[in-house]
Amino acid sequence: MKFKAAVVVTLKESVLDPQGVTIKEALHHMRYNQIESVRLGKFVEISLDASSAENAEKLVHETCRKLLVNQVIETYKLQALSPVSQKEA
Amino acid sequence: MKFKAAVVVTLKESVLDPQGVTIKEALHHMRYNQIESVRLGKFVEISLDASSAENAEKLVHETCRKLLVNQVIETYKLQALSPVSQKEA
Repeated sequence: MKFKAAVVVTLKESVLDPQGVTIKEALHHMRYNQIESVRLGKFVEISLDASSAENAEKLVHETCRKLLVNQVIETYKLQALSPVSQKEA
Repeated sequence: MKFKAAVVVTLKESVLDPQGVTIKEALHHMRYNQIESVRLGKFVEISLDASSAENAEKLVHETCRKLLVNQVIETYKLQALSPVSQKEA
């Protein structure tokens, strides 16, 4: 069965985010002073093949821990995992 | 009022994603052959000050169109917009 997973990877709260700060400052220069902070993360969309939703979930967590996420400074959340019909795939 | 918005910025379907391909190939080297494709996007968390939820939403869309999103190759989705209690802020 085909599945599609959406994973959000964000920096831990305690970690400085210079990219986010730069975006915020750019917005302030554009007179959007109502913006108080911006933090930038990654959004990863994974298409995979697995025998069950359970296995698919396990596989996504494994890839996150082993490759996608640097757990020293980042956290991740599996936002969605849904089967894809063969027609769509 | 303080609001927090979550925006997901992704490449359009028709646009090649070399970063995603690299991640997929790395996963294949690690024997995760069930992974069929990976696409990488951005996740932006914005904290802002606005008089109403409607104004907050308008502001987020404006910042997306004017700075955060390159609409030639990317699309974005406002995933969530919620008020933040003063205690949390």
